[in-house]
Amino acid sequence: MAPSAPRDVALAGLRLGSVDLVPVLFVLGLLVTGLGVAMLAPALLDALVHDKDWGAFLQAAGISVFVGLLLVLGNHRPHLRLNLRQGFVLTALAWVTLGVVGSLPFMLSAESMSFSDAYFESVSGLTTTGSTVMSGLDTQPPGLLFWRALLQWIGGIGIIGMAIVLLPALRVGGMQLFRMESSDTTEHGLTRIGALGVSITAIYIALTILITIGYLVAGSTPFDAVCLAFSTVSTGGYANSDASLAGMTTLGLWISTLGMMMGSLPFPLYARAVRGNPLILWRDHQVRGFVIFLVTCWLAVAGWRWLTTDVEFFKALTAAAFNLTSIVSTTGYASEDYTLWGSYPVLMVFMLTFVGGCTGSTAGGIKMFRLQISLKILRTHIRRRHLPNAVILPTYGGRPIDDDISVSVLLFFFAMGSTTSLIALILTATGLDWVTALTGAATAICNVGPGLGPIIGPVGNFAPLPDVAKWVLSFAMVLGRLEFFTVLVLLDRRFWTA
Amino acid sequence: MAPSAPRDVALAGLRLGSVDLVPVLFVLGLLVTGLGVAMLAPALLDALVHDKDWGAFLQAAGISVFVGLLLVLGNHRPHLRLNLRQGFVLTALAWVTLGVVGSLPFMLSAESMSFSDAYFESVSGLTTTGSTVMSGLDTQPPGLLFWRALLQWIGGIGIIGMAIVLLPALRVGGMQLFRMESSDTTEHGLTRIGALGVSITAIYIALTILITIGYLVAGSTPFDAVCLAFSTVSTGGYANSDASLAGMTTLGLWISTLGMMMGSLPFPLYARAVRGNPLILWRDHQVRGFVIFLVTCWLAVAGWRWLTTDVEFFKALTAAAFNLTSIVSTTGYASEDYTLWGSYPVLMVFMLTFVGGCTGSTAGGIKMFRLQISLKILRTHIRRRHLPNAVILPTYGGRPIDDDISVSVLLFFFAMGSTTSLIALILTATGLDWVTALTGAATAICNVGPGLGPIIGPVGNFAPLPDVAKWVLSFAMVLGRLEFFTVLVLLDRRFWTA
Repeated sequence: MAPSAPRDVALAGLRLGSVDLVPVLFVLGLLVTGLGVAMLAPALLDALVHDKDWGAFLQAAGISVFVGLLLVLGNHRPHLRLNLRQGFVLTALAWVTLGVVGSLPFMLSAESMSFSDAYFESVSGLTTTGSTVMSGLDTQPPGLLFWRALLQWIGGIGIIGMAIVLLPALRVGGMQLFRMESSDTTEHGLTRIGALGVSITAIYIALTILITIGYLVAGSTPFDAVCLAFSTVSTGGYANSDASLAGMTTLGLWISTLGMMMGSLPFPLYARAVRGNPLILWRDHQVRGFVIFLVTCWLAVAGWRWLTTDVEFFKALTAAAFNLTSIVSTTGYASEDYTLWGSYPVLMVFMLTFVGGCTGSTAGGIKMFRLQISLKILRTHIRRRHLPNAVILPTYGGRPIDDDISVSVLLFFFAMGSTTSLIALILTATGLDWVTALTGAATAICNVGPGLGPIIGPVGNFAPLPDVAKWVLSFAMVLGRLEFFTVLVLLDRRFWTA
Repeated sequence: MAPSAPRDVALAGLRLGSVDLVPVLFVLGLLVTGLGVAMLAPALLDALVHDKDWGAFLQAAGISVFVGLLLVLGNHRPHLRLNLRQGFVLTALAWVTLGVVGSLPFMLSAESMSFSDAYFESVSGLTTTGSTVMSGLDTQPPGLLFWRALLQWIGGIGIIGMAIVLLPALRVGGMQLFRMESSDTTEHGLTRIGALGVSITAIYIALTILITIGYLVAGSTPFDAVCLAFSTVSTGGYANSDASLAGMTTLGLWISTLGMMMGSLPFPLYARAVRGNPLILWRDHQVRGFVIFLVTCWLAVAGWRWLTTDVEFFKALTAAAFNLTSIVSTTGYASEDYTLWGSYPVLMVFMLTFVGGCTGSTAGGIKMFRLQISLKILRTHIRRRHLPNAVILPTYGGRPIDDDISVSVLLFFFAMGSTTSLIALILTATGLDWVTALTGAATAICNVGPGLGPIIGPVGNFAPLPDVAKWVLSFAMVLGRLEFFTVLVLLDRRFWTA
């Protein structure tokens, strides 16, 4: 009976249905411990300015590291190996659990936020959404401000990792198109993933430093420059002021625009660009489509404002470039109340909420490759209607778009449309007006940040919403961040029994 | 050289690129003549009440019949045969041209409407949308009121024919699932189509008579009963009062609800039910889904109003049943201003705008079978994510959902989403507020009728919109009615050269 011994060990651990949770909880423990350790940075900052919140961070760090290490030690096994279903469970569980861990400082600090508020703020940070329930940011001690920025920065790199390694392996939303050899989870594959992870993390840090310098040059304080760089490269959107980036110089707005665009590009391409192929970024179909799309939007809104109002062209262009890039890249900064620009820009902002950046980046939303693939499928499909016998195979970046990819990508739109509708309906039932409900659902699912209307618009705040609405929106942020299917598989009964 | 003789004849007629338009123009001529002859009915009505508009109808009839017969005689050929591409061209051309023909009485009558207004009203009638630019309907002479009802009634049967014969043959939006042997356009097939056409027309007339009797019993005048029956069975929505059906009795509202539901069911099933299989309607997956969905919506809104306000349950149920069925069936009647019910019902109404009835009916929108199929594809797709090796074939009504159908159906959502967005954006650029623009685009594309907001809401009117917005909306109505792809193929360059 010797060969069955390791199996018995596995059976001794926690299982849910037929899914062995031991390796899942082990990795989760590592993540929780890591996030706890990260709390030491804001603790140090608050200690330096003699703010008593340093104790709150230390307390939160203690709890997190303790729980995290318990999970690690209690679920340790000689060889770590995750199968497909464990990958799904880990992904969903990680975002939900880290949201709880990240909320501890908000509750324990002088702000002493309720769990609903703290969880909303934490999840909005980790999913790089950027919707906030906090006000009085301009006079906050540095600790909490840095923690908000750090949550987004950590969330951003987590999302990149998920988009490169996990989603292609799970074949979610057409991501199988980006399946690399490194997407396998064997030990051999994991080594290569490790190497890629190191180089992408280095690039992420380098970009953050670059953007920090940019903000410094544009006149930000060192603290603001670092915090903003964190929430820019992660396309998060948390700012250190209630007025978002309204106080920023024109140069700062352009640097921010560039920084948000950098955060929206595919990070695996950066890695290849650094390894001696610098033009690969511009040659990439998705990157090119993203930049062209973005500049077209800038000109469409700036030109319209220039023609119909007496605003100067360059001023209109700066405002359009910054605020529209903020929406499309799913960052969510605002430099002014763009809902006053008129109905055409406002409707455009609502629609751009869904677009998103490139895949493999920190951006949320539909993402450029899905829009491009859908248009290709549409064109092929139309031609096949009137040329039924023609053999037309659509390709994307040289790879054929097979039927599984087509259905995956198109189902993504269906899933996004139906979940947005459903969540918006639930939000109206909590008493919200329908504009707040609809744009709130969209901005949460696409991880953008602000909605439309007097409450959650670009100069608004999510604090006045009822608690139940905050929980619904927190769920929506995770659902959108995990690209729907990663969550939806967990609802299939056979997932737990097969 | 004898065999090439017929070809030479064809070359003598009108061609567009490589498409021979002769048989297209022949059929178009028949349709134009038919619509011209139909104008004699309102002419007779106005003559009976001594209103001078009878002359306008006679004049319009004369022009139409003259042009129609010219087309028929100028494009006559021994054997009528339409190929695939001619089918596409005829479909699009017919709706646009009949819109012009139908607009003649509006321009020539005492109303002397502008071409923009007249075309909007005519296309809104023929596409069974029901958006109106006319007011003072309660004091109108009978001719124009009857003409509006007649346009919808004729449009309704035209849509059923298109959905049964043409769209399955063109394999548009998953309609290939409903491809029957009768969908071929050979002479043999055409004979069978003819037989089906006769029985469906008979059923359409029988339902119209039944609904007329219903309205009479509920207290309508004979004239109103007939006009309303015309716009009910066709899920059109034109009423003879500016207040739509606000003056209707409770019995009348329930009869109308039932009538709209009848118009939303698949007419081929009626034909089979009459031929000795009466239970087939209830056994049909789509019909069952439609009825269950509808009743759920009634209860969700009526129950909510009953719980949160002091309205009686039966009153709330009647109002919900009538007004929600009016939206889902894409009719567009209103018995009261439901936009005052609160944000939850209002957002629900906006979302239900897209749903639509069953295919093979007079209803527009997404249609129930596409929603059902998408949910089935979604479920299969999710299961395939975590069981990659499982062989799971989704079926619908016993037929397998192959990849072409999956992509067709899912692309329909993509096409609907992108055209609604694009048209809404264009409408904001004409100066409309974004709520009017967004709901106006949706209600036109889905052929429903009313939008939301103070201008085009259920108690509003489309007259105040700028002319360019009316043209954009007229185009949107045709685009939605033809289920996008029938129009989009015409934009493919190879359609005209291949």
